[in-house]
Amino acid sequence: MRTDYCGNINASFVGQTVTLCGWVNRRRDLGGVIFLDLRDREGIVQVVYDPDLEDVFATANKVRNEYCVQLTGLVRARPEGQINKDMSTGEIEILGKELTILNKSAPLPLDFNQENSEEQRLKYRYLDLRRPIMSERLKFRAKVTGAVRRYLEDNGFLDIETPMLTKATPEGARDYLVPSRTHKGRFFALPQSPQLFKQLLMMSGMDRYYQIVKCFRDEDLRADRQPEFTQIDIETTFLDADGVMAITEDMIRGLFNDLLNVDLGDFPRMTYAEAMRLYGSDKPDLRNPLVFTDVAAIVKDVDFKVFSGPANDPKGRAVTICVPGGAELSRKQIDDYGKFVGIYGAKGLAWMKVNDIDAGLDGLQSPILKFLNEDVAKALLEVTNAKNGDILLFGADSYSVVTESMGALRLKLGEDLNLLQGEWKPLWVVDFPMFEEVDGEMYALHHPFTSPRDLTPEQLAADPANAISNAYDMVLNGCELGGGSVRIHDQQMQQTVFNILGIDEEEARSKFGFLLDALQYGTPPHAGLAFGLDRMVMLMTGATSIRDVMAFPKTTTAACPLTDAPGIASAEQLQELAIASTVTDEQDNA
Amino acid sequence: MRTDYCGNINASFVGQTVTLCGWVNRRRDLGGVIFLDLRDREGIVQVVYDPDLEDVFATANKVRNEYCVQLTGLVRARPEGQINKDMSTGEIEILGKELTILNKSAPLPLDFNQENSEEQRLKYRYLDLRRPIMSERLKFRAKVTGAVRRYLEDNGFLDIETPMLTKATPEGARDYLVPSRTHKGRFFALPQSPQLFKQLLMMSGMDRYYQIVKCFRDEDLRADRQPEFTQIDIETTFLDADGVMAITEDMIRGLFNDLLNVDLGDFPRMTYAEAMRLYGSDKPDLRNPLVFTDVAAIVKDVDFKVFSGPANDPKGRAVTICVPGGAELSRKQIDDYGKFVGIYGAKGLAWMKVNDIDAGLDGLQSPILKFLNEDVAKALLEVTNAKNGDILLFGADSYSVVTESMGALRLKLGEDLNLLQGEWKPLWVVDFPMFEEVDGEMYALHHPFTSPRDLTPEQLAADPANAISNAYDMVLNGCELGGGSVRIHDQQMQQTVFNILGIDEEEARSKFGFLLDALQYGTPPHAGLAFGLDRMVMLMTGATSIRDVMAFPKTTTAACPLTDAPGIASAEQLQELAIASTVTDEQDNA
Repeated sequence: MRTDYCGNINASFVGQTVTLCGWVNRRRDLGGVIFLDLRDREGIVQVVYDPDLEDVFATANKVRNEYCVQLTGLVRARPEGQINKDMSTGEIEILGKELTILNKSAPLPLDFNQENSEEQRLKYRYLDLRRPIMSERLKFRAKVTGAVRRYLEDNGFLDIETPMLTKATPEGARDYLVPSRTHKGRFFALPQSPQLFKQLLMMSGMDRYYQIVKCFRDEDLRADRQPEFTQIDIETTFLDADGVMAITEDMIRGLFNDLLNVDLGDFPRMTYAEAMRLYGSDKPDLRNPLVFTDVAAIVKDVDFKVFSGPANDPKGRAVTICVPGGAELSRKQIDDYGKFVGIYGAKGLAWMKVNDIDAGLDGLQSPILKFLNEDVAKALLEVTNAKNGDILLFGADSYSVVTESMGALRLKLGEDLNLLQGEWKPLWVVDFPMFEEVDGEMYALHHPFTSPRDLTPEQLAADPANAISNAYDMVLNGCELGGGSVRIHDQQMQQTVFNILGIDEEEARSKFGFLLDALQYGTPPHAGLAFGLDRMVMLMTGATSIRDVMAFPKTTTAACPLTDAPGIASAEQLQELAIASTVTDEQDNA
Repeated sequence: MRTDYCGNINASFVGQTVTLCGWVNRRRDLGGVIFLDLRDREGIVQVVYDPDLEDVFATANKVRNEYCVQLTGLVRARPEGQINKDMSTGEIEILGKELTILNKSAPLPLDFNQENSEEQRLKYRYLDLRRPIMSERLKFRAKVTGAVRRYLEDNGFLDIETPMLTKATPEGARDYLVPSRTHKGRFFALPQSPQLFKQLLMMSGMDRYYQIVKCFRDEDLRADRQPEFTQIDIETTFLDADGVMAITEDMIRGLFNDLLNVDLGDFPRMTYAEAMRLYGSDKPDLRNPLVFTDVAAIVKDVDFKVFSGPANDPKGRAVTICVPGGAELSRKQIDDYGKFVGIYGAKGLAWMKVNDIDAGLDGLQSPILKFLNEDVAKALLEVTNAKNGDILLFGADSYSVVTESMGALRLKLGEDLNLLQGEWKPLWVVDFPMFEEVDGEMYALHHPFTSPRDLTPEQLAADPANAISNAYDMVLNGCELGGGSVRIHDQQMQQTVFNILGIDEEEARSKFGFLLDALQYGTPPHAGLAFGLDRMVMLMTGATSIRDVMAFPKTTTAACPLTDAPGIASAEQLQELAIASTVTDEQDNA
């Protein structure tokens, strides 16, 4: 039906007759001549209808925006003054000779010339995706998956599908359940990840596995979460952590090189401890030059309980962030930052402006100056390397409150004050703790199949709180692109981890019996990693939400305004599945 | 941890030292020398341990079958008499120098040297997949998907993901439901296909779409069905049926060429009517030379109601199959075939052996000979082109009983009598009816979005029973590889089809309102096709079940013996989802 895509017509086509199909992006009537901008997936081209060609002009006259048409015409150079350098087709136009209306269009419920509400955009997603910025994102996403597949297949990874209807797995989020009709009273779970299946594939000798796969979490949604999301899931045998990091780093570097013409260079590595110490985050944004400075040793004896309390508490923390040029912040701005850290539990935000570094206490301005003697102030200036015009912002509280609140403040200051340097800053974060303790119970920081680093089962059992895991996260610009670990391949080690996590033998058998069984039969050393595809594409395209890089996302209440899903199930369907709705008035919740 | 895969070591490596990782496929102790066959994904290689190398020999002595090991050794040519031409590594062996046991193995619960029950194979799938035949199938499957993706991406198709949590769609099978927690009392459905989403993507101008995607049907399972299966899903704008057939035929031809070195040639096309007439099937196996011959005109006046009744009934059918050499069938064999057609509702199987074609009625042998005069007999022999030693088998009953029973008999005879000719026989079946009438109600033969061929909405409404659709199925060796159609892109036509199917306006709006809406806004002409990946790989690998080409299939009761899915849900989970199980004693059904 066509000879070319609209967006591909350029000066090399001049003199040729082409046939195109697409949508009328805009129709103009200028001085008795009709101009149609015809749009397809690859771009927009200008077509001109001359009143001298009466039949085709009459058809062009009937055409409206978003009509779907097929047209044939002669490509010619645009007159000198009408060349549009911003369009790939801007040097030419097409003199329309034939025109067929394939389908009419009612006026669109979305106005492409203004911002539409997200609800409207999702309800009319098929129209929203006509916007070039949206189709470019989906095209870019397809390029990413294509490049990732090629890389992995060239490196011996096999694309193997794992089940969607499966058993609850231990990623820790809420499962989506699927009632079984043939085993009434029982439920499948949709996978939060293919973790156990990919480990089983390594046990089966499949050697290297990958899958670009949907995963599911029934969580309360935040801006960057969706009930179904896509993972680039990777697992390999006979490679250690360095091996997995090398190959996946190479893949991502290649992706940025090929698709964005960006050289990410070698990714630095940073321990979890270092990341928390300097940035209060396990996914630090290294574009942001602000760092924490721990000041407990300096302020532990000051006559200011807000500082000295946490500074002397083994579970407390006292840090400062020196903000270059921050002395210009107004009282109101500082107050607002105080409220901001309050969201994370901080009780306030102490500050100290550096007006004249050589003037002692007189050169400083701070509500807490009265609590600080000259030595303390001098030590603070020295340790932060502060300069005139800077401000020190302080956090002193429990370790977790300080880390979270000042970590968030660091990011906010970076954005507000335009401090970010460089476009892309990747790194690996390594040496995570195996466990975190919450209210006396141990939780796996990654998942319970993560191997500890250089520990026997006995050593691990003896001091789990200080055990370091063989896990690694790839971080880019403050986002976790992916994470993985060397897995446990030893039955005794797996049992030890279950014990530490308080998973008793009965629970372990009922949940992971097949894994414990499988560990008996020559399980190879194996390791892997999973990338979040949606977030990766979001970062690479500069989109601000993962919804903008998915064709048909859900709203933040996990609904689809387009199809009106979730929908009503019939009484017969529920009966067959041996379930009943406990909602008394369905309409209340619809 | 290794320098090469086991299966890649050949004569070109002689003299080199290699390091390999894998599993001990077999350990033998021959005359004080230990032979290990080491297996990895790529094959098996023989490693020899000499007792002179005491340390490594002692380790080799401890190794048992299925231990996972890492070893280093010197590749050397095998002695002349020990060369094994059947193995890719059969010209060499490795003199073992170092050996590390990475993991021990208990004796396997599966014996690889014998047939294991499918239940056992699925329970220990991670071991079953260690069998080279199984890993080869999964490797082949990955090659198929890789080749399909490359072909489609090279032809401008974009890989776009569609939702898994969606709304009930009209494929006609039972949906898997997923209760919504945030919209209590409502349910998502897992997609039976991405049909509506891919049509919406065409409406959005994405031009060419593909996806290799999981689909779900909660049906009672047969040998070749699974609750979740994988489709190669394709849709394109601005191509007609011929265009879609050309591109997908080219893809499949390339696949067979590249992966099996088979040239499928050009696919013949056959109308649905012709396929039903000659083979009693809309997916005829053309390797089977047997054909139906309609004989109603010949037998309509015989004094044998079994024949003349259906022959004179507009809804009846009378056919014969002439089986070359079939006169040798014993009475018992013929009786068994009579029972076989009984499964499909036939009341018996009339037959006529051709002993001497020149001897008139005396040269024929048949229980119904007394009802046939010489002219009728002669006409039957002529129309079937029967030869001495053949048998004619008759079916006379309603159209559907004859077509189904004789169609099944044709296939069975082909298998039993080794009649199949040629290895691969593809074809397109086209010109399907739009609808089939069952008990006075019209059903869509494909689905309700299929376009009729060369009809206006008014013409379609006037005579739906005789409308031909613009649908096409790709058939290979009697299996439907894939099917598709030109879709309706006109709102009035879509409404007409809904009307014919008895879908009233309220139902149409509640189920497909978004589609009807979308059809208003310049919907382009579009068409597509979906292949069943599992079945395609099954055919190409010669496997006899799609379960053998899936890593982790379910049993015929839709359960997973490996993970014990579906599993029990907790009371808290069900409460959060606002559902209750109506099973009174869960154990009864577990």
